[in-house]
Amino acid sequence: MKMNRITKFGLAAALIALPSLGLAQEADVTPPNEEIGYILNTFLFLVTGFLVMWMGAGFSMLEAGLVRSKNVAMQSLKNVALFSIAAIMYYLVGYNLMYPGDGWTITNVLGAFSSASMEPVGLADTETDLTYASVGSDFFFQLMFCATTASIVSGTLAERIKLWPFLIFTVVLTGFIYPIQASWKWGGGFLDANYGFLDFAGSTVVHSVGGWAALAGALILGPRIGKYKGGKTHPMPGSNLTLATLGTFILWLGWFGFNGGSQLYMDTAGNVADISRIFANTNTAAAGGAIAALILTQLLYKKPDITMVLNGALAGLVSITAEPLTPSLGAATLIGAVGGILVVFAVPFLDKLKIDDVVGAIPVHLICGIWGTIAVVLTNGDATFGGQLISIIIVGVFTFVVSAVVWFILKATMGIRVSEESEISGLDMAELGMEAYPEFTKG
Amino acid sequence: MKMNRITKFGLAAALIALPSLGLAQEADVTPPNEEIGYILNTFLFLVTGFLVMWMGAGFSMLEAGLVRSKNVAMQSLKNVALFSIAAIMYYLVGYNLMYPGDGWTITNVLGAFSSASMEPVGLADTETDLTYASVGSDFFFQLMFCATTASIVSGTLAERIKLWPFLIFTVVLTGFIYPIQASWKWGGGFLDANYGFLDFAGSTVVHSVGGWAALAGALILGPRIGKYKGGKTHPMPGSNLTLATLGTFILWLGWFGFNGGSQLYMDTAGNVADISRIFANTNTAAAGGAIAALILTQLLYKKPDITMVLNGALAGLVSITAEPLTPSLGAATLIGAVGGILVVFAVPFLDKLKIDDVVGAIPVHLICGIWGTIAVVLTNGDATFGGQLISIIIVGVFTFVVSAVVWFILKATMGIRVSEESEISGLDMAELGMEAYPEFTKG
Amino acid sequence: MKMNRITKFGLAAALIALPSLGLAQEADVTPPNEEIGYILNTFLFLVTGFLVMWMGAGFSMLEAGLVRSKNVAMQSLKNVALFSIAAIMYYLVGYNLMYPGDGWTITNVLGAFSSASMEPVGLADTETDLTYASVGSDFFFQLMFCATTASIVSGTLAERIKLWPFLIFTVVLTGFIYPIQASWKWGGGFLDANYGFLDFAGSTVVHSVGGWAALAGALILGPRIGKYKGGKTHPMPGSNLTLATLGTFILWLGWFGFNGGSQLYMDTAGNVADISRIFANTNTAAAGGAIAALILTQLLYKKPDITMVLNGALAGLVSITAEPLTPSLGAATLIGAVGGILVVFAVPFLDKLKIDDVVGAIPVHLICGIWGTIAVVLTNGDATFGGQLISIIIVGVFTFVVSAVVWFILKATMGIRVSEESEISGLDMAELGMEAYPEFTKG
Repeated sequence: MKMNRITKFGLAAALIALPSLGLAQEADVTPPNEEIGYILNTFLFLVTGFLVMWMGAGFSMLEAGLVRSKNVAMQSLKNVALFSIAAIMYYLVGYNLMYPGDGWTITNVLGAFSSASMEPVGLADTETDLTYASVGSDFFFQLMFCATTASIVSGTLAERIKLWPFLIFTVVLTGFIYPIQASWKWGGGFLDANYGFLDFAGSTVVHSVGGWAALAGALILGPRIGKYKGGKTHPMPGSNLTLATLGTFILWLGWFGFNGGSQLYMDTAGNVADISRIFANTNTAAAGGAIAALILTQLLYKKPDITMVLNGALAGLVSITAEPLTPSLGAATLIGAVGGILVVFAVPFLDKLKIDDVVGAIPVHLICGIWGTIAVVLTNGDATFGGQLISIIIVGVFTFVVSAVVWFILKATMGIRVSEESEISGLDMAELGMEAYPEFTKG
Repeated sequence: MKMNRITKFGLAAALIALPSLGLAQEADVTPPNEEIGYILNTFLFLVTGFLVMWMGAGFSMLEAGLVRSKNVAMQSLKNVALFSIAAIMYYLVGYNLMYPGDGWTITNVLGAFSSASMEPVGLADTETDLTYASVGSDFFFQLMFCATTASIVSGTLAERIKLWPFLIFTVVLTGFIYPIQASWKWGGGFLDANYGFLDFAGSTVVHSVGGWAALAGALILGPRIGKYKGGKTHPMPGSNLTLATLGTFILWLGWFGFNGGSQLYMDTAGNVADISRIFANTNTAAAGGAIAALILTQLLYKKPDITMVLNGALAGLVSITAEPLTPSLGAATLIGAVGGILVVFAVPFLDKLKIDDVVGAIPVHLICGIWGTIAVVLTNGDATFGGQLISIIIVGVFTFVVSAVVWFILKATMGIRVSEESEISGLDMAELGMEAYPEFTKG
Repeated sequence: MKMNRITKFGLAAALIALPSLGLAQEADVTPPNEEIGYILNTFLFLVTGFLVMWMGAGFSMLEAGLVRSKNVAMQSLKNVALFSIAAIMYYLVGYNLMYPGDGWTITNVLGAFSSASMEPVGLADTETDLTYASVGSDFFFQLMFCATTASIVSGTLAERIKLWPFLIFTVVLTGFIYPIQASWKWGGGFLDANYGFLDFAGSTVVHSVGGWAALAGALILGPRIGKYKGGKTHPMPGSNLTLATLGTFILWLGWFGFNGGSQLYMDTAGNVADISRIFANTNTAAAGGAIAALILTQLLYKKPDITMVLNGALAGLVSITAEPLTPSLGAATLIGAVGGILVVFAVPFLDKLKIDDVVGAIPVHLICGIWGTIAVVLTNGDATFGGQLISIIIVGVFTFVVSAVVWFILKATMGIRVSEESEISGLDMAELGMEAYPEFTKG
């Protein structure tokens, strides 16, 4: 910070009189050439893509922290495995299902069945279009969104689902359900072409989809033993709140990539300034969600609830995801704060319905995903309430129904729930034969 | 690493004869145009900004690891909440207090009272000055420094301060104290204009300010029960040294953003080469601090002290922060090593004064912040000992006095300390009603 | 994701008809100028360098999770200390030993003995060659590879080696062994000049070298007390599998920097597209390794083994490191999967040989390092089986012999193993006088 900044916008044009930028005195204002734009767009995907990849670790830590210690190793394994499955399924079939170009199997409804391939090594000899970014970087970035969807499901169903049926569901979710519905918007399908649906980074396309799949699973799988015994909700506190805090910070960090990279272009001043808006708005929405949940739980329960504050931050993030660009900082804070409030009320509401969501993923990702998608109309004049709502419903019905069918088939064939004995003793010993914290005596 | 590098500087000009860079044979040496510079500067802020944001997680883990398990959930909550408060307060008032442009309320002393706003979406239609970076990215980056200041305070006052008074102090610190004094240097105020004060990335402006605020709080709050019982210092070991280690690594990583982004420009070869120097120097200063603390504790106590080594690394980082650019690698290592040594002596010295600093934040951030600010004169000919010292004092007196007033008001009105009973039983059960590690029996 | 992507390669050229890129209508296709290339190359090193630095945290968490709780603080300390030592030794001697330019002490065999120095501050007044990247960024990036090598060793030798001999070995490894053998390939030495050896990011140069040094140490140090008692292998489960999971995710993330940065250039479309390929291939290789280990342990043991799955992911990463560019996504997945399978068989095989490798570093880094180096011939026509094999052997013999000599000298002089009593009570209390988790009673 070696020099003063004069950064209050509005005054900026008149005030900025920075010292010489070295050689820049000869600089002109012709735009970057195409190849530089291609490099910058591609690098944007790589940097924001690795941030979204890091969210996989965030979900893993959050969930490991919010389950009981007897299920922690299994929850960790599930998170590593689902991320790996997403990587392979998205390569094998998901990417081209989602972005079929003009190769739709059913126009604007069902994409192309073929595996992903990248540009050849080096581009010097090819006549490559340099107006976008490299295919490899786009694949890498988009894959991480697919994996995020699967991460959402694992938290809800923790502590009682069998490993292999969960992984088979993940195969279907990441290879088919997610890419097909995502093609409807981001692949240029009918929600994009005909409904004017706007979902910048995926409040609906990613988060609500994870939430619907989780909801279908939770209904079919049923609650954990003892959770709603005797008509009351029995809290089952997470085993490690620092891990849950770490997971939240990781997700918060990764979300800059999630929303920022979704600008897709960093080749002009306008695009990079927009990415900046997105970063700032994403951050403030998370802050709004966390503070709203903090104050609200203090008022409601006389004590703040840290797990609600963590979920409040995540709720703020999901809420701003459908439109992180157009809001002002103030609007973004409020959109996030509403998300935080929704979560505080939704968690006990789900419990009333006896829907057992171990980590609160349905309130955070489904309910705030819907809220965020609707909130687009508040700041983006191109969005319509009707277009948003019908798209939410179409995506929701598709995801919920297909997920339910898959869960039913899995239940009918191999079973999806561990034995009562295994559930009580914990999945770690029962299914893995090892414990996450073998040396620590339990209270 | 597909090709050989010939990288020994000095020989470089004569030796480098790299193969063709593809199309680059037609390259010329005219400087990047202005728009590319704007994109690169902005992206620098976004990348380094998210690294500094990640430091929030680092402080959270470090502190959660160094408090006793009965206070871990509260410490985690405080860290999430303070980061969120910083985000909102810096938006509402801090940013323009810090960077008033020509809108000073009192010229060069007190900035502007208005909330931050970013450029409009897209810049195509505006006549934007492209010589710097986007306002949104600058806001995002600068906010993270403000949040860092607040993170420093939470560690010192852990295990006995009430949640809400702490958060109210955070409101004042992040909305007013930090931005006002920061405006004196980085906003172009009187320390910058009249005293020739040099503080590249904030050894004084950020770290010592956090340290002074923490010191004021520690004096007014008093030590933990039993800490200095019977005239002796009773160690209260941290509950989780892997978390403390993780936190240190996170902070180390984030510091590349902290110092590197403070170069502010990445639009010329000179600027990006300077950022590289900063990264390398930042790393080696941390290493110097860690190794110095390792060797010194071995010599003094016959056993190395891991918490001192971790704090030694952080001390090295704080020490290099005022001037990470001008030192050579060797000088940077030594500046960091002195920081590591200072910490080893300062921790027991504070205990002698009965100032209870739970995580060692005052030695690391205040004492090494002062050292680092003075050390600027060793490698940067533009700095004067007098100018550095008077600036340290002015910032210190201002921060300490205002902080003390705020702490006193809070103490007199709502009280700042939990009851003796709550402190003994732990803040987690007393104030939150939940534990960080509910299943583990305590020894 | 505000617009549709049409990204199926092959169709791309014909299909892409993106909307206007703002001002870009005037864009041309002349290549980026040299200074922009220099900025982009340098920034690539800084970003990928901080990712590789983060791997230091990954190793620390992985190892802290896989040792027993009585040795966790010591393992954390070792990881912080070794990283710091690497930073200092690589500056003092390693960098110029590795990249001597034309200053070889023995041509193509032994580099230059001098400490690293960076470009002067600012480059405006120098006649700098801008065809590559800044020396500071190159130093920063390369240093992290050196540190990685040392991190590999610490895991194998955990739970019984004395601190200081380990750190002295680290001095030799990071200052001399690693840089000297690395100069043979990456410094343009004889393996590069005469053997056609290809090792893109260091399956051999980094990972196998760490593995050989660890193997020499393990043989000379001997197994932990009780590990192979009565002719049987007694499992000694890691104390914290969430930390091990976190460490794996961190390493996975950092590996994008490890392999991606090794492209060295980001100044053309071809280079950045190649980096994209590398990111995607690195990710899918890890996924392949994890899934292979998951399925294989399920088949072999009827229960999946999470530590094998974690090591499987790492095995996939090591396997793809020698050639992350030329494979297709499918080939990369398979190369990683073979790595995952190798680890599942290698871990018990080492136990049969009574080689006690606490975290499985030898299977992951040495065995998969060899596999990955040989696998280059499968996808890169420039590699020969003979050239790869002879290079593996030369590097292996050199590293193993020199390491063994150093270990023997340390054993003969100061001793390398803690007392039986210390080993049983744990290194934390015996050597540090503190515990990682002091409040938790052990089962």
